[in-house]
Amino acid sequence: MNPSVITLTTDFGYRSGFVGVMRGVILGVAPEAVVVDISHEVAPQDVLEAQFLLERAEPYFPPGTIHVAVVDPGVGTGRRPIVAKTPRCFFVGPDNGIFTPWLDVAEVRRLDRRQFFNPEVSLTFHGRDIFAPVAGHLARGRTAEEMGPIITDPVRKSLPHPSLTSEGIVGEIVHIDSFGNLITNIPAEMISETTNPIICIGKRKIKGIADNYADATKGKPCALIGSHGKVEIAVPMDNAHKLLGFSYGRKVKVLSG
Amino acid sequence: MNPSVITLTTDFGYRSGFVGVMRGVILGVAPEAVVVDISHEVAPQDVLEAQFLLERAEPYFPPGTIHVAVVDPGVGTGRRPIVAKTPRCFFVGPDNGIFTPWLDVAEVRRLDRRQFFNPEVSLTFHGRDIFAPVAGHLARGRTAEEMGPIITDPVRKSLPHPSLTSEGIVGEIVHIDSFGNLITNIPAEMISETTNPIICIGKRKIKGIADNYADATKGKPCALIGSHGKVEIAVPMDNAHKLLGFSYGRKVKVLSG
Amino acid sequence: MNPSVITLTTDFGYRSGFVGVMRGVILGVAPEAVVVDISHEVAPQDVLEAQFLLERAEPYFPPGTIHVAVVDPGVGTGRRPIVAKTPRCFFVGPDNGIFTPWLDVAEVRRLDRRQFFNPEVSLTFHGRDIFAPVAGHLARGRTAEEMGPIITDPVRKSLPHPSLTSEGIVGEIVHIDSFGNLITNIPAEMISETTNPIICIGKRKIKGIADNYADATKGKPCALIGSHGKVEIAVPMDNAHKLLGFSYGRKVKVLSG
Repeated sequence: MNPSVITLTTDFGYRSGFVGVMRGVILGVAPEAVVVDISHEVAPQDVLEAQFLLERAEPYFPPGTIHVAVVDPGVGTGRRPIVAKTPRCFFVGPDNGIFTPWLDVAEVRRLDRRQFFNPEVSLTFHGRDIFAPVAGHLARGRTAEEMGPIITDPVRKSLPHPSLTSEGIVGEIVHIDSFGNLITNIPAEMISETTNPIICIGKRKIKGIADNYADATKGKPCALIGSHGKVEIAVPMDNAHKLLGFSYGRKVKVLSG
Repeated sequence: MNPSVITLTTDFGYRSGFVGVMRGVILGVAPEAVVVDISHEVAPQDVLEAQFLLERAEPYFPPGTIHVAVVDPGVGTGRRPIVAKTPRCFFVGPDNGIFTPWLDVAEVRRLDRRQFFNPEVSLTFHGRDIFAPVAGHLARGRTAEEMGPIITDPVRKSLPHPSLTSEGIVGEIVHIDSFGNLITNIPAEMISETTNPIICIGKRKIKGIADNYADATKGKPCALIGSHGKVEIAVPMDNAHKLLGFSYGRKVKVLSG
Repeated sequence: MNPSVITLTTDFGYRSGFVGVMRGVILGVAPEAVVVDISHEVAPQDVLEAQFLLERAEPYFPPGTIHVAVVDPGVGTGRRPIVAKTPRCFFVGPDNGIFTPWLDVAEVRRLDRRQFFNPEVSLTFHGRDIFAPVAGHLARGRTAEEMGPIITDPVRKSLPHPSLTSEGIVGEIVHIDSFGNLITNIPAEMISETTNPIICIGKRKIKGIADNYADATKGKPCALIGSHGKVEIAVPMDNAHKLLGFSYGRKVKVLSG
């Protein structure tokens, strides 16, 4: 049997050893698990950016993968810890909407069996004390059913959908990658119907969608379909976020030219 | 048998490939070892910050784990390379005090058997040339006893302990995490005896200990017991380090209100 | 048999989940593969910095390792995807010169068998869609021969070699590490023939080569042979790159004093 894959998506950063500690807990429960980092540089407490990254990554992992996501501004409050089981994989984390894209096809359970948690559960680090050990037990073959009772009202929270207006498509920036590229919520399919698209952000107007970075002009803003499958705005050989000054939530319009 | 776990804690950062090279050396010796990063963003040459992070992380790893820590300002000088074996696990790294919290329960040996090192040993990178291969050999079942003679005078170096004065508890900042939270050396147990605690740093006075980040006010400094089990100062949804300007070594007082 | 080792070197950074996605794809094909990061913080699109880091790291990995490098400014254009097989290991990535140091001993093949790619191949992310699955198939025992036809004209691109002039050795900065140390292309062996070396950069003159960081004076620029085996310029306990203001390509001379 293949070793179970567990992914981690958090806003912990890499400095403090929190990710390493989660791996230590997982390996203590499930020594054969293979643990993969998706991102630990989610903008602090940005549940929707985590959701965006996990949604882009999930299709590329093997069936049965256990995805742990811990962007958890409500840790220590009454917010529920959950496991969501879909036909394809598992999600483990806080009930704060982070797993919304999968909820329609998931059976969601509240984690309430202390025997699957760490002996001591802190008020600030459920990633270590609840989610990591639960993921480990799932990796070892424990079932989602054993983890707690079904809940039918999980919290839902979604990135705004791009809208079609009389002007054109209106979306916004939902992620900024390590290059400083500005990734919007406008999918490739949506823009494919626009003839001679003009991408507008602030006072900038970008004509056309480049096929790739190499086709664009160095230092000049361009738009293209990025690796996330969404319209993104980049400045070849430079950092669009720093250079243009646009950030999360900034509106992006696609007009027909 | 479970695969051996090896952890790595360094100040190497992620840019130059040094951590990858250590993993390559380990895998060459011990192909089945599972290698886990604790942190590679220890403040450069800050032996005590590495010690702090390793001390917080160590309890969460399985028995038998081999912890390699390389924050090593004395590399290439006469400082000794050591292995410290405790009833629970192994530590491998420079004899510069980094493993002080475990020395009272450890048997410490000087690494002097060249057959367990890389064929060539550089003057600047013992992590690659000594500590990684030694960890690999331990992971494959070689014993600490085979690695060299016992030494009885390992270097000791400790973070300052918080003190109890007539005024209250006096501690200091010992770690800054990726969020910019300021982590002190004052443990939760110490402050639990203080009624109506007021946390003082610089001219700031923070009343009370918040239960969690969500309970605190956005943008306003608060104190809480963090995931390290210590008093920490945070600014919810912001970076306390940048916003308040306090850094390593800054005194923190806890008074009774 | 030992599990196959796959290394990853990219300029993707850690924020967007691209590295995690590559691991997901690899694990889907080759569940037992051990994946090691060399660096994901190569300067954006700097093929030669990636080459430099991979060249320093490669000798420390076990025979049979599959090195995937994706610094790929030409993705989506006609540039070829390749596998290069040497007597010691495999290289998988774009045909843009990144593997030049090994080309003289390698058999190079163009990757053109779609059955070894992801079902859909994007225009911007061949790391995920071509290189990761091909590496996975190699890890599972597929041969390089199966991956496509031999090509005899792979692109070559090399870091400038240091030159010997009447003045002395002239090299340049080719890498800046996480400490801000300035790493040159001047190898240790070249400088060993220089008596009383004086290292010149900009208007700075540094006398002698320090044995190690501890021997140098805190806060004062020094030169030493770093872990890469090259002359590097450091400021002990400080960041030479930020403090001195020198960056990639800056000329470094070594004169005889």
